[in-house]
Amino acid sequence: MVRKNRKVISRLSRYKNALNRFQSLGFVKIFSDYLAEAVGVTSSQVRKDFSLFGIHGNKRGGYQIDALLERLNEILGKNELQRVILVGAGNLGSALIKYKNFEKDGVKIVAAFDIDPAKHGDRDSIPVLPLDDMQRFIAEQGIKTAILAVPDVAAQPILDRLTSCGIKGVLNFAPIQLKAEGRCVVNHVNLELELENLIYFVNAMEKTGDTGLGN
Amino acid sequence: MVRKNRKVISRLSRYKNALNRFQSLGFVKIFSDYLAEAVGVTSSQVRKDFSLFGIHGNKRGGYQIDALLERLNEILGKNELQRVILVGAGNLGSALIKYKNFEKDGVKIVAAFDIDPAKHGDRDSIPVLPLDDMQRFIAEQGIKTAILAVPDVAAQPILDRLTSCGIKGVLNFAPIQLKAEGRCVVNHVNLELELENLIYFVNAMEKTGDTGLGN
Repeated sequence: MVRKNRKVISRLSRYKNALNRFQSLGFVKIFSDYLAEAVGVTSSQVRKDFSLFGIHGNKRGGYQIDALLERLNEILGKNELQRVILVGAGNLGSALIKYKNFEKDGVKIVAAFDIDPAKHGDRDSIPVLPLDDMQRFIAEQGIKTAILAVPDVAAQPILDRLTSCGIKGVLNFAPIQLKAEGRCVVNHVNLELELENLIYFVNAMEKTGDTGLGN
Repeated sequence: MVRKNRKVISRLSRYKNALNRFQSLGFVKIFSDYLAEAVGVTSSQVRKDFSLFGIHGNKRGGYQIDALLERLNEILGKNELQRVILVGAGNLGSALIKYKNFEKDGVKIVAAFDIDPAKHGDRDSIPVLPLDDMQRFIAEQGIKTAILAVPDVAAQPILDRLTSCGIKGVLNFAPIQLKAEGRCVVNHVNLELELENLIYFVNAMEKTGDTGLGN
């Protein structure tokens, strides 16, 4: 297997999203430069990324959108429903339960787990269960992926429980660096950090009239 | 001004978060290798990042945590309350209104705006106002930063309105590539993409027993 990094896979997702939009606009074929423009990369980047997966366009006709989408969906595992669990049903967790865009994208949160009995019960048709039921649920349902939306201090112990239950991928929202035992990928979404980062550049522009972005 | 990129600023945020935790554990001084370990970078990276901002440790004593935190807060604009607006008070927007961690971090959502009259009114002490009031509010309050949590199709027109009102930084949650006119920084948080990315690696591991992460 060609070793592929996160950035390539992220771009594949973005190509897929753009292709869906082109398709909804009635496009049947597309050239790499259109796709590049929509995603904000160069067209040689598009062709390079696709060639990594053995996808090649036609110089005169470009790419056939339906075939390209089918291949991208297959690579990204979108051809079957991806079942994930959510740990932590606080403010952010509750929002993620309600967040309709995941389902549109072929990902279903099948259950949430929380330590607080007040949070247990069904919410938006998703059961919120006691944390102690988590291990059995993961085993019985063969769950491999979890979303972690717990407070900072709980994040590492919960991650340890998840990996010991066989979870292979975690999307962590706690603003803390986590260490996964064994073979588990942890991706981070740090909202505070994103906002702080943005504010730095806004302030820098205010002071100097320049974004200061050397990147 | 030294041109500094997003990654450096993101690491400064992460150093700050780790330092706050070390301080809460009773630490007064810290060596770069401790900080590096907590953040998941090398200690030479820590020293290099700090030296960009004229921060130098003491070889025998390391860094004084309180002075270092003060300097980092100053660089990141955390010494004064940062006021931001939110556009879009749907599921995700509502969750962001409730999300307490922003305030802990010195960022306050002072108002939200939505096109839907049913959403107007106060929510968790934050006013949700008509979209048509946005321009006046931004001007009167001198707002520079906005969080965008609107549906895909609304994102670009709203961004255009925000930049024409003088907004300099936008944190965009819509899963779509946006183009900002003039001097406005747009940072993206794409939850679907993060989850899709994770699932790719989980599936790759299932198939091959390897993360395939060449990064």
